[in-house]
Amino acid sequence: MKTVHLIGLGPGDPDDLTGRAIAAINQVDVFFLLDKAGPGKDELIQVRETILRRFATDKPYRLVHAPSPERDRAAADYLGAVEDWRQKKIDLIGRLIAEELEDGQTGGMLLWGDPALYDGTIQILHDLKAAGRDDFQFTVIPGITSLQALTARHRVAMNRVGGRITVTPGRALEKMAPEAVDNVFVMLDTRHAYKHFIGHDLMIYWGAYLGLPDETLIAGPLDQVAGQVEAEFQRLRAAKGWIMDCYLLRRRDG
Amino acid sequence: MKTVHLIGLGPGDPDDLTGRAIAAINQVDVFFLLDKAGPGKDELIQVRETILRRFATDKPYRLVHAPSPERDRAAADYLGAVEDWRQKKIDLIGRLIAEELEDGQTGGMLLWGDPALYDGTIQILHDLKAAGRDDFQFTVIPGITSLQALTARHRVAMNRVGGRITVTPGRALEKMAPEAVDNVFVMLDTRHAYKHFIGHDLMIYWGAYLGLPDETLIAGPLDQVAGQVEAEFQRLRAAKGWIMDCYLLRRRDG
Ligand SMILES: C[S@@+](CC[C@H](N)C(=O)[O-])C[C@H]1O[C@@H](n2cnc3c(N)ncnc32)[C@H](O)[C@@H]1O
Ligand SMILES: C[S@@+](CC[C@H](N)C(=O)[O-])C[C@H]1O[C@@H](n2cnc3c(N)ncnc32)[C@H](O)[C@@H]1O
Repeated sequence: MKTVHLIGLGPGDPDDLTGRAIAAINQVDVFFLLDKAGPGKDELIQVRETILRRFATDKPYRLVHAPSPERDRAAADYLGAVEDWRQKKIDLIGRLIAEELEDGQTGGMLLWGDPALYDGTIQILHDLKAAGRDDFQFTVIPGITSLQALTARHRVAMNRVGGRITVTPGRALEKMAPEAVDNVFVMLDTRHAYKHFIGHDLMIYWGAYLGLPDETLIAGPLDQVAGQVEAEFQRLRAAKGWIMDCYLLRRRDG
Repeated sequence: MKTVHLIGLGPGDPDDLTGRAIAAINQVDVFFLLDKAGPGKDELIQVRETILRRFATDKPYRLVHAPSPERDRAAADYLGAVEDWRQKKIDLIGRLIAEELEDGQTGGMLLWGDPALYDGTIQILHDLKAAGRDDFQFTVIPGITSLQALTARHRVAMNRVGGRITVTPGRALEKMAPEAVDNVFVMLDTRHAYKHFIGHDLMIYWGAYLGLPDETLIAGPLDQVAGQVEAEFQRLRAAKGWIMDCYLLRRRDG
């Protein structure tokens, strides 16, 4: 039997790793690093290498870098493109487990934030097993999400008293009625969906590169700071070539 | 100036603490432990003491136990009772910072899960400052939430592909239309609100005492396992005298 640990790293700062994640890292013989092409690649590889240098101290390990399949972002058929991308990832991860791990060995995948939050890897391993692969077992190790880094840095609660919390990709935010936006976390937003909600008396708590050296925060009434958020997003992305950001939209109290 | 660290401990298992939480613990001169009366009290005090024995190794510290104000659970006016309870907590925490910390010292509050998730302490410190208290500053240190322990143990994603996530107290779940329940995490549910949703083709992923020695998991189609969840809840609560549980309700795919 082989074992695969899906290890949540938190948003990027090595201090956000849990003891459980560090213990799992130290059981791993082979780390599979799925590298996304593009400008952020080197920096994100470096963060993971820093984490391994600091924490993977108990035994030797091997790194296997593999280019991560790309999703066709221009595709009109969003779900179809996601499905195609997922199938390529299933094939890749299935091959890595088959070819790079020996029986009795442990593989590790270092995932940003928490493996359960907008990251398809857990489902991919279930799909491999459902397709008949019985050569491996796997575990999931939680990590601090980017949303928790966001609320901790802004020192705000995730919820209003007694209220609900919504988490949504930017694409689905755009479809929400402004009145339905009470307390909404937004991830994976490439088109500034918050701009649809100007004029509705919302607060925004925004963060980019959370847990990384370029961490940037903006908070305030959306109507007043939306322009500043967009300008800062453009400036940072132009300067670094890539950006990761998320935000909370919250109806004001009272 | 005094400093207060609000430290997220994760759901209970010391392995879920982050390096950032451990570093913060080691800066603390005085821990404020707000103990809830009732049957779970001793066990939860013990978990925190185990965590301190294991991690608070850098310098001497002092523990200040204070009985946590109780919310009037019988009150018809839910928000009024919450507000009254909150005011008592503000007074208590304000007094602890004033009387138990000297200038230049650091206080610590050990909070379950993440301090930002259904825990009023962050807002209490803001309220103290808004009321003019300028003798302290504070930081928030994220922790693994019970929801992340739940999804990790069940090895399920928090979201469906491209979809939204809702987190809600049990009380607010009851008011949701069954069609609106697509992917909903439920906390603080004392009356089995999931039973309202039997017959709507949902899955339930349930967990009790996550991260603690009595951790118990049940997963399956809600229509089939709802009875088992309720029976197990009653049995565990009767056996131990207290229970903490949470769950995910998810519409089935396809
Ligand atoms: C594919 S999702 C993965 C989320 C991750 N599993 C987590 O728990 O945070 C990627 C999205 O998460 C958010 N994100 C991840 N890391 C971030 C960071 N360090 N700073 C800001 N946002 C981040 C961004 O919204 C990004 O589009
Ligand atoms: C006041 S809220 C605090 C939540 C906490 N801040 C967190 O991040 O998990 C308490 C609720 O969280 C859930 N909860 C907290 N700890 C839990 C545990 N160890 N196992 C199961 N549920 C837990 C239960 O739904 C409980 O009613």
